[in-house]
Amino acid sequence: MSLASPKRAALLAALEAALGSGALLTSDADLAIYSRDWSGEYSGRPLAVARPRSAAELCDVVAKCRGLRIPIVPQGGLTGLVGGAVARQNEAELVVSLERLDAIRNIDPDNYSMVVEAGCVLETAKRAAEAQDRLLPITFGAQGSCRIGGNVATNAGGVNVLRYGMTRDLVLGLELVLPDGRLWSHLSPLRKDNRGYDLKQLFIGSEGTLGVVTAVAFKLYPLPTRVETALVGLSSVMDAMSLFARARRDCGDLLSAFELLLQEGVDIAMRARPDLAPPLAARYPAYVLMEASTSAAIDLKEMLVGFLASSDDLVRDGVVAASRAQADRLWLYREAMVEHQGRGGRYFRTDVSVRISDLPAFVERAMAAVRARLPEALPVAYGHVGDGNVHLNVIPPEGLDNAGVDALFVAAEEAIFEIVDQLDGSISAEHGIGRAKRKAFLSRIDAVTLDLMTTLKRSLDPADLMSPGRILPSSREAI
Amino acid sequence: MSLASPKRAALLAALEAALGSGALLTSDADLAIYSRDWSGEYSGRPLAVARPRSAAELCDVVAKCRGLRIPIVPQGGLTGLVGGAVARQNEAELVVSLERLDAIRNIDPDNYSMVVEAGCVLETAKRAAEAQDRLLPITFGAQGSCRIGGNVATNAGGVNVLRYGMTRDLVLGLELVLPDGRLWSHLSPLRKDNRGYDLKQLFIGSEGTLGVVTAVAFKLYPLPTRVETALVGLSSVMDAMSLFARARRDCGDLLSAFELLLQEGVDIAMRARPDLAPPLAARYPAYVLMEASTSAAIDLKEMLVGFLASSDDLVRDGVVAASRAQADRLWLYREAMVEHQGRGGRYFRTDVSVRISDLPAFVERAMAAVRARLPEALPVAYGHVGDGNVHLNVIPPEGLDNAGVDALFVAAEEAIFEIVDQLDGSISAEHGIGRAKRKAFLSRIDAVTLDLMTTLKRSLDPADLMSPGRILPSSREAI
Repeated sequence: MSLASPKRAALLAALEAALGSGALLTSDADLAIYSRDWSGEYSGRPLAVARPRSAAELCDVVAKCRGLRIPIVPQGGLTGLVGGAVARQNEAELVVSLERLDAIRNIDPDNYSMVVEAGCVLETAKRAAEAQDRLLPITFGAQGSCRIGGNVATNAGGVNVLRYGMTRDLVLGLELVLPDGRLWSHLSPLRKDNRGYDLKQLFIGSEGTLGVVTAVAFKLYPLPTRVETALVGLSSVMDAMSLFARARRDCGDLLSAFELLLQEGVDIAMRARPDLAPPLAARYPAYVLMEASTSAAIDLKEMLVGFLASSDDLVRDGVVAASRAQADRLWLYREAMVEHQGRGGRYFRTDVSVRISDLPAFVERAMAAVRARLPEALPVAYGHVGDGNVHLNVIPPEGLDNAGVDALFVAAEEAIFEIVDQLDGSISAEHGIGRAKRKAFLSRIDAVTLDLMTTLKRSLDPADLMSPGRILPSSREAI
Repeated sequence: MSLASPKRAALLAALEAALGSGALLTSDADLAIYSRDWSGEYSGRPLAVARPRSAAELCDVVAKCRGLRIPIVPQGGLTGLVGGAVARQNEAELVVSLERLDAIRNIDPDNYSMVVEAGCVLETAKRAAEAQDRLLPITFGAQGSCRIGGNVATNAGGVNVLRYGMTRDLVLGLELVLPDGRLWSHLSPLRKDNRGYDLKQLFIGSEGTLGVVTAVAFKLYPLPTRVETALVGLSSVMDAMSLFARARRDCGDLLSAFELLLQEGVDIAMRARPDLAPPLAARYPAYVLMEASTSAAIDLKEMLVGFLASSDDLVRDGVVAASRAQADRLWLYREAMVEHQGRGGRYFRTDVSVRISDLPAFVERAMAAVRARLPEALPVAYGHVGDGNVHLNVIPPEGLDNAGVDALFVAAEEAIFEIVDQLDGSISAEHGIGRAKRKAFLSRIDAVTLDLMTTLKRSLDPADLMSPGRILPSSREAI
């Protein structure tokens, strides 16, 4: 669909009048940074970008778009990796950037809660909570760029899900603009509330297709005062999962992260950061980065050291950080690997989950399938294995042209998702569906689920104006 | 609505044929135990009781009822306290008892998950998990009677919500029969799964109005190997909440229960159980029952004793249980109080929540309001104050007739809910709305919320045949 000029002009004039100067961007130069996601895989020029400063202004924007039947795409930090928040090329979608709706409305330390606007950068919200001795536990690499509204819209995961759950588990209340332009405001930070249907659950993880989140009430936790970090070398992924089974029991809920790396991943980190020495004296097929944390007055180091000593049948070597600086350095192997795995170019990402008990089989079979099918590519596996969640990415050989990379993406997805299917796993553990995984999602979904999702979408957004074509097919596209 | 004989006979014949003998109950004698809830406040004779043995049989029952437009009410242990699972008198509703769908389908200790059918008694499921060193953390008084399907349908709470969350937080997957008789089966126990809308959230807490749960995949936790329990005496509810604020930090997520009792409640327990001595040497206005638990190899007792010693400005006296038997005895004050508060007669129950920081103000103001308005009644307050959740119940004076008790219920609700409203709290923290709180719920709900809930109900159950009149008005009743 392209938008006829008179309709476009009418919308822009109406929005300009409603929002005031500087709130509506229309020039190519201004639109550039709103037209491409962090990965570079998705780009599309929106009709315009509206930047409301309040939920009321956003209600007005949505109502005006509805009147003219202009689709709306809410946008946060553009780090979602599934193309959901970038405008579809040639579809004349209005991008709504939440960046100016970024206040921290309040922090209630005694109630262990905070209310934050959707455009607030996650890192900013985390620091504000920490200043009051409270933890907002959502933690992952993009936290310095992603925004709260996107975290909620995609039900973001990360490295501390093991202990604190997904974003969904941390949301006490929401304020949002419905597809018809009405505001739904339920920000009361009650810990328990069973009054009728829990409507906020509908919107969490709906990727902008059912409404636009404007503010969130979060559950907070005590800020840990003791954090212990260890990196251990192991003989196999199977041993890593055996170690996890014991750690889950022997460290209880003090275990806050359990991340798997393979030797290839550690090598990527060391190539990218020559200041990183090999983490242990010898090389091992698998490594686990473990973190335990608490605000309780207990000897956490004794617990962690004792645990590793009692697991010497599995742990071949290991180091427990003696300081916060050393712990940060242990995390650097993981961070540098994630950041530099693609050598600055395009690479194929997955975000799959299987039963924790099936994880060793998944990694072994999927790595083998990729190596067999794409012998010149480099598969890299890592992830939040305490949640059964692996990122198995595939790096193309250097020098491959764009068409070759496209073909590699298709082949890699087929090879990896086939193993996911065999293990009854999920092709999207924490990133969502967006546009990137829609085809794979729809080809696997059962008829009843598709019917229920379509019913919900049609009930709440009958005109199909909220992020159309994300998750489900747009009503205006041929399937 | 009463059901004309030919329609009734047609349904019963069709169900009898579909379910086989013994699966359909129709005589007054057989229906008696399915016609009255645990509290005795709600009763109603159903058209019949169907007891399917499989989800497929239930699909058949629902399809047949749909054809004849007979309303269906799923029923578990009848301990929900809001009248949701009892048939409405004279409405010819078919009760579906899940009691024969009670298998534990599997327990996967390595994945920390189990799949249980809806009719399984909660206690049975908990014991099965414990036998594999795993914890199903839903814990409350009725656990020996309530059934899993009811726990999910009402999003049950309990004493361990503080640590493990509500039932919603523990559900990984669901299998259920939709209002149109189709089965929706998503029992894969993945810890993370962001494939499209999280449909199971719709049904959790929907109190049987959107479908009938037939099986549940639960998240399990390590079974605690160390449990420490303390009962402390305090000068006020305010001091109890100050102690909670410190305990939340200094005991971290090792704190698994934090229950408030008042002296009046302890007196009720001691009157009911003459073998219970006063718990501490002197009497105190407020008591807190604290529990910390873990499977980690740490000195939990040292932590708890150290915490209480460091809080001697708040804690006036206290005892830390030296054995499991002594811990059970400390819990007995709470259990005997809950069980005997009504002296065997009718009493008014509430289940409200406020911000944790507002809890002392709520208890003080609501107790004062009840005493002022109903000077001859006895208000009893206790609850899961670490979640901001209080049960403030009102016991009528002895000898009051039924009409007097009815009037007292109305007056008590008005007095207590007025304070809840002032503090922007919830009139239903963990029990749901059902029929008991529908009027109070609907009189407080905003128009947008009501519209969204009605839209959902109509989209999924357009014929309004699933637990009609619970939560929302039935489409067939005059409002």
